[in-house]
Amino acid sequence: MAAQRRVLRLPDIPGYTTLKGDFHTHTVFSDGNVWPTVRVQEAWRDGLDALAIADHVEYLPHKDFIPVNHNAAWEICRTLAEEKNIILVHGAELNRDMPPGHLNALFIQDAAALAVPDIMDAIEAAVRQGAFIMYNHPGWEAQERDGIPKLYPIHRDLIAKGRLHGIEYVNTYSRYPLVLDMCRDHRLAIMGDSDAHDVISEIYKASENAHRPVTLVFAKERSSASIREAMFAGRTAVWSGNELAGFENVAAPFFRAAVSVAKPHRADDKSIWFEVGNASDLPFFLTDGPAGAPSSLTIPANGSVIVKAERRYLTEPLAYTAKNVVIGNGKSLAVTLAPGGGPAGPIR
Amino acid sequence: MAAQRRVLRLPDIPGYTTLKGDFHTHTVFSDGNVWPTVRVQEAWRDGLDALAIADHVEYLPHKDFIPVNHNAAWEICRTLAEEKNIILVHGAELNRDMPPGHLNALFIQDAAALAVPDIMDAIEAAVRQGAFIMYNHPGWEAQERDGIPKLYPIHRDLIAKGRLHGIEYVNTYSRYPLVLDMCRDHRLAIMGDSDAHDVISEIYKASENAHRPVTLVFAKERSSASIREAMFAGRTAVWSGNELAGFENVAAPFFRAAVSVAKPHRADDKSIWFEVGNASDLPFFLTDGPAGAPSSLTIPANGSVIVKAERRYLTEPLAYTAKNVVIGNGKSLAVTLAPGGGPAGPIR
Amino acid sequence: MAAQRRVLRLPDIPGYTTLKGDFHTHTVFSDGNVWPTVRVQEAWRDGLDALAIADHVEYLPHKDFIPVNHNAAWEICRTLAEEKNIILVHGAELNRDMPPGHLNALFIQDAAALAVPDIMDAIEAAVRQGAFIMYNHPGWEAQERDGIPKLYPIHRDLIAKGRLHGIEYVNTYSRYPLVLDMCRDHRLAIMGDSDAHDVISEIYKASENAHRPVTLVFAKERSSASIREAMFAGRTAVWSGNELAGFENVAAPFFRAAVSVAKPHRADDKSIWFEVGNASDLPFFLTDGPAGAPSSLTIPANGSVIVKAERRYLTEPLAYTAKNVVIGNGKSLAVTLAPGGGPAGPIR
Amino acid sequence: MAAQRRVLRLPDIPGYTTLKGDFHTHTVFSDGNVWPTVRVQEAWRDGLDALAIADHVEYLPHKDFIPVNHNAAWEICRTLAEEKNIILVHGAELNRDMPPGHLNALFIQDAAALAVPDIMDAIEAAVRQGAFIMYNHPGWEAQERDGIPKLYPIHRDLIAKGRLHGIEYVNTYSRYPLVLDMCRDHRLAIMGDSDAHDVISEIYKASENAHRPVTLVFAKERSSASIREAMFAGRTAVWSGNELAGFENVAAPFFRAAVSVAKPHRADDKSIWFEVGNASDLPFFLTDGPAGAPSSLTIPANGSVIVKAERRYLTEPLAYTAKNVVIGNGKSLAVTLAPGGGPAGPIR
Repeated sequence: MAAQRRVLRLPDIPGYTTLKGDFHTHTVFSDGNVWPTVRVQEAWRDGLDALAIADHVEYLPHKDFIPVNHNAAWEICRTLAEEKNIILVHGAELNRDMPPGHLNALFIQDAAALAVPDIMDAIEAAVRQGAFIMYNHPGWEAQERDGIPKLYPIHRDLIAKGRLHGIEYVNTYSRYPLVLDMCRDHRLAIMGDSDAHDVISEIYKASENAHRPVTLVFAKERSSASIREAMFAGRTAVWSGNELAGFENVAAPFFRAAVSVAKPHRADDKSIWFEVGNASDLPFFLTDGPAGAPSSLTIPANGSVIVKAERRYLTEPLAYTAKNVVIGNGKSLAVTLAPGGGPAGPIR
Repeated sequence: MAAQRRVLRLPDIPGYTTLKGDFHTHTVFSDGNVWPTVRVQEAWRDGLDALAIADHVEYLPHKDFIPVNHNAAWEICRTLAEEKNIILVHGAELNRDMPPGHLNALFIQDAAALAVPDIMDAIEAAVRQGAFIMYNHPGWEAQERDGIPKLYPIHRDLIAKGRLHGIEYVNTYSRYPLVLDMCRDHRLAIMGDSDAHDVISEIYKASENAHRPVTLVFAKERSSASIREAMFAGRTAVWSGNELAGFENVAAPFFRAAVSVAKPHRADDKSIWFEVGNASDLPFFLTDGPAGAPSSLTIPANGSVIVKAERRYLTEPLAYTAKNVVIGNGKSLAVTLAPGGGPAGPIR
Repeated sequence: MAAQRRVLRLPDIPGYTTLKGDFHTHTVFSDGNVWPTVRVQEAWRDGLDALAIADHVEYLPHKDFIPVNHNAAWEICRTLAEEKNIILVHGAELNRDMPPGHLNALFIQDAAALAVPDIMDAIEAAVRQGAFIMYNHPGWEAQERDGIPKLYPIHRDLIAKGRLHGIEYVNTYSRYPLVLDMCRDHRLAIMGDSDAHDVISEIYKASENAHRPVTLVFAKERSSASIREAMFAGRTAVWSGNELAGFENVAAPFFRAAVSVAKPHRADDKSIWFEVGNASDLPFFLTDGPAGAPSSLTIPANGSVIVKAERRYLTEPLAYTAKNVVIGNGKSLAVTLAPGGGPAGPIR
Repeated sequence: MAAQRRVLRLPDIPGYTTLKGDFHTHTVFSDGNVWPTVRVQEAWRDGLDALAIADHVEYLPHKDFIPVNHNAAWEICRTLAEEKNIILVHGAELNRDMPPGHLNALFIQDAAALAVPDIMDAIEAAVRQGAFIMYNHPGWEAQERDGIPKLYPIHRDLIAKGRLHGIEYVNTYSRYPLVLDMCRDHRLAIMGDSDAHDVISEIYKASENAHRPVTLVFAKERSSASIREAMFAGRTAVWSGNELAGFENVAAPFFRAAVSVAKPHRADDKSIWFEVGNASDLPFFLTDGPAGAPSSLTIPANGSVIVKAERRYLTEPLAYTAKNVVIGNGKSLAVTLAPGGGPAGPIR
C-alpha cells in the first residue's frame, strides 16, 4: 500500500488554527542516517503541518565522505516540501558545551553564516536573520549529569536580551517538567521535538501506538510567518505520548474543543447515564472525581465513555482533574463535565 | 485496558442522521456461542447505534441443556442495552427450506408467537406485531447450490402482499450483488449483517483492519421508531469491507459528505497540486480518471491524498468513478472533484 | 483466515516434558459468557495441552434461564477436546466466604456430588474422586480487603490432612508473591490460571502481545494422569506476562534449555563480541552484570542479542540475575553465561 | 524498546546450513535514502546472515552533494558488520540499457575498477576480482516494456563464457517465473533481493506480516567463502511473501525439514485424527488432496493443523501438492504426509 498521510485530530481553539510541527530533526548532512527528503515524507505521513531540519553546524561526523554544506538539506527538500504542502522551516543546531549547550536557530536564511567560533557571534548571526532561538534538551545527561534542566547565567542573559525564545520540554522520549515553569516565568515557548537522527517510524512504532513529540502551534493562519509569530508569542503546547502540556490559556480551550458531553440517555430514581465523547487523538485521564460519580474516568481518543452518576449532576457540573493535561511542573488542568447542559443525543 | 467504544466515522447526509446497525446475530439461546449480553457489549465497542438479536425459532441445538425460551435473549439484554445507549431491536429468525429459506422478523414484541408450523402463519404473526421481514443470505450455498440469490414465487407473493421488506446483500463475508437489483426493482431495503454465531472480534479482527458488515440507516432521528420507518422506506446502505453499497440517492450525498477538496496549494506553469481529504472510515478508490490527472486515486479513510493535475482542472471538475461505492449490480458511483471551487487551506 | 494453533515455545527440561495448561475457566453454566466448546477452541488456538473448566457449584446467576447441571460443560466438550488433542480436566469451583474462600477441585468425575452445604463435606466428596484441590486467588480483594493472601487455620488444617495441593500465584492479571513462599514451605503446587469468564482473546490481546497465565506442568508424559502426578508432586511453574515463576529445581533447567551462548564471533585486544540466543517465548531480563560487561541485558523471546565484554570472559563465566525468573517472594534466579565454552557459530 | 534481532526459522537441510541473505541494496552513495550503517542494522534485525550493498557505479543522482566514492558504503559498514556478525559482501551495480540491463557484481574488492565505459570491460574487471555476476530484475518494465524477462544474445554469450552466474527471480515485490526455467536450463543461481532504496521496515511492514525477499544459500558453513561457493554451485532458493522457490534438490529436503507428522491422537471406526506441524516461518498451502482426506490444507508457519482422514491413511501416505513451494515456472512440489509412520505424541 502506498504511503498515506495520517490526519491528526488535535482541534483548533477559538481564534487560532492548531498547527502541528517538529522543529528538530537531522539528516546525513550532520549525524543523521537519512537523506533529507525522507524527513519531508515522514512529516507528510505523520500529518504534520511544519518541519524543521536542523543539522549541526559543528558536529559533522560524515565529513570524510560528505563535504560540509550547511544548507544542503534545505536545498534538497524545498520543492518536495512545497509539493507535499509541508511548511519547511530552515534551521540549524549550534552545539557548545553546557552552558549554553545546544541551541536551535529556526526560520533562518543561511546556516553557513552561523559557522563561527564564538557562540554569541553565532546567535547574533542567527538573530540578524530573524531566528527563533530554542534551548534544546536542557536536561540531557551527556551534558547535564543530574538530568535537571537549568537556566545558567548565559541563558538568563540571552533571555534578557531577547535572544532565547523557547525551550524543549520534550526531546525524543525525555520530558523535562521544570521547563514548564521556566517557560512560564520567562514567557518562552514550550517546545517538543523528535530530534530524530534515525527513521521516525522505527523510533515511534505504529504497532505500539506511539507518535513523535509534536509542538502544537496556535497560529492565526497556516503559514510559516504565522507559525513564527505564534512561537515568538509563546502560543505553543506539546503533544507527547498520551500527554498535552501547555499553559491554561491554550490547554483549557483545547480540552473544551475536544470533549463533548451529551444529555443523559437514561435515568432512574437515583442515577443518570450520559455519554462523554472525545474528538481528538489524545485520550483524557480524569481523576479526583466528585462523590456519586466515578472517581476516575478515561475518555478514549476518538471514542466515548458512558458515565453513571447521581441525579444531582443533572444540574451540577462534575469537577475533575485532567491528569494528562499538564499546565505546569506537577500541575494538571481542572475541568468540568456538564451533562445537564449538553446537547441531546449520543456522541457520534 | 478497559473496553472502549469505537466511534464510526460514517457521515450524516442532508436531512438524515446515519445510524449504524447489525440486525442479525445469535446467542446460546439458539445456535450461538455467547451469552446475550456479549452481543450488546460488542455492539457498543463497535460503535453501533442499533442491534438485533434474532435467535432461530426452530433450530435449537442446545435444547438438551437450555429450555426453549424464544424471548430469553431480549429479556436478558434490555437493561444493559439501555445503559449502553444501544437501540435493541427485538428479532427472531424463521428457518424453512428454500424457498422461502431463512427470514428475520425485526421489531417484534413476542418471538414465541412465531413458533408455528406454517411459514405463512409465522409471517402473519410477525406482521401483526409490526415486523419488518428480511430475506436472509439468499445465495447461501447450503440452501442454494449455485450460490445465486433468487426471488421464488413465494418471495414475489410476499413482496406483493407487503410481507417482505428487505434482503441481505451482505451476510458475514458473503456479498450477493444481484440483491442490489432486486431491491431496486421491488423497492426493498438493502441489508448487511454479521449473522454472528461466534465472537465478533474473532471473526472481524482489528489487526486485519476488518469490521463486521453494517447496515447504514438514514433515519430522521436516533430512535427505534425512526430506524423502522427508514427501513420500511428503503433508506439503507451497507458498509462491508472497503465497500459502500446503496442507491444513488444515499450514496451520492454520502460521498459528498465524506470527501473534501482543497484549493491548490501549489501551481506552476503546467500543473496544480491540491489535497483531497476523506473524513470517513471508508477509503475511496477512484478510477477512470481524466487525461492530465491520475487515472486512479485512493483517498484513504480518515486521511488525505495530494493530487497533481494539469492546470485546466482549476476551472474544470475532474470526473472519476468511485469503484467501491456500489449502486447496483456491477455499477459504481460517478463522482467529481473540483479543486477550483474548494475551500482555501489544507485538509485538516 | 481460519483459526490457527499457536505453538508455545516453552522448552522441555531434562527428564520431563513441559505441558501447558489453564486449570480455571468458566462457561454459561455458571457465570461465564461463552458456550463450553469455545473454551476448547481457545485452548487449542493458544497452544495449550490441558484445560480445566471449573464452573461454580454454588454461584449460578443464569439459573432462571439454564437449569442446574454441574457436569454440563464437561459433557458438551469431551468429544471436541479429544478431536483437538486437548487434555480436558473435569473440574468444579467451590465458593465459600473467606476462609476458606474459593477452591477448585480438579480431576473429578462428578461435580454434582460436590453440591453439598458443608465445605468439608464437599472437599471430601472431591477427594474421594481423586481431586487435586487448589486455593484460588487468595488475595482477591472482594474477599480479602488488604489484598494479602493468607493461610487461615482451615487452610493449614486442609494441608495437614493432604486436602489442599496447590495455590494460585497468578489469577487473570493479579500476582500474589507471598504464595511462592507458602507453596515452598508447604510443598504445594504453584498455579497460574485465567479464571476466564469472558472471551480469552479479548482479555489477552494479541495486538498487545498478551497471553493468558499458563501453568507449566513438568510431566513424565503427555497424559491426564501424568499432569495429575506432576501437580501432586509440585512440579509446576507459572508463565504470566513476561515472567516465569517456579522453584529453582525447574526454573534453572528451564533457563538452560531456553538460552544458548555462542563462541565469540569477534575479538580485539580488549573485547569479545558474542551472541546469546533464546529459543523460548519468554524474554529474559538479566541484571546485576559483572564489571567489564553490560550491567543489564535483554535476551528477547525467540531472538538473540550481541554482547560485548572484556576478554577475560573468554575463560570466566558472566554472572547475572534473571530478574523475571522468580523463584520466591522477591527472589530471582542466578544464572551464568559462558561464551568461552559455547558452541561455535551464531545463534540460528 | 531497543531493536531486536528476529530469528528466521528456515531450517537447514541435510549436508548444508541454510544461510539467509539480501544481495542487492542501496545507500545515499548512489540513489538510496539511508546511510550505509542502516543497511547493516536492518539486516541484523531481519535475521539475515549476509548482506550486499551494491550501489550503482554509474547512476549517482546525489553527486552534487556527495563526491563519487564507489567503495564508501563498504568502508563505512565493515566494522559494524563484524560486530553484528553479519557477513558483508562487497558489491556494485552496473547499469546499462537493456540488453544487458542491470548487473550486480558481488564478492569484489574494489568497485572503482568497475567504473569503465564498456560493459564487457566492467564485467571483466569484476571477474578478475572473483565476482559473482547477477542479472537484476530482468522483467523490469522501465527497461522491458512487456515485463517478460529475456535472455538476449549478450546474456547467452556471458553465460557461455562463465561470466553470468545468477538471475533475480524476485526483486522487491516483483516475481519473474520464467527465470526459474532460465536458471534450470543454464545452471544459474536463483536470486531474490530487496533492491532497497528506502527503509526496509517501511517497504515490508511487520504489521502486514511482510518480509523482504531473501535468498537462501545452502552453504557448507557460515562464511563468505561458503556463500560464494554455494552461489556459484547454484545451491540457492528464494523466500518471498509466502512462497519458497527453488529446485527440487533443495525444496524437497526443506519441506521435510520443516514439516512433521504425528501419529494419530484419535481414531474411530472410520477416521483418524492427526496433527501436522510446521517448524518454519513459511506456511505450506497443500492442494490436490486424496479422497477421504481434506482436499486442501494449510499448515501455518510455526504452528500446526489437525487433519481428519479415513483410516486407510494409517498405512498409506497422503499425497498433496505444496502449492507455494515452486520448483519451476508453473510447477509446485509434490509432497506426502505419513501419519502412520510419524512419531507418537503431538506437535510441540
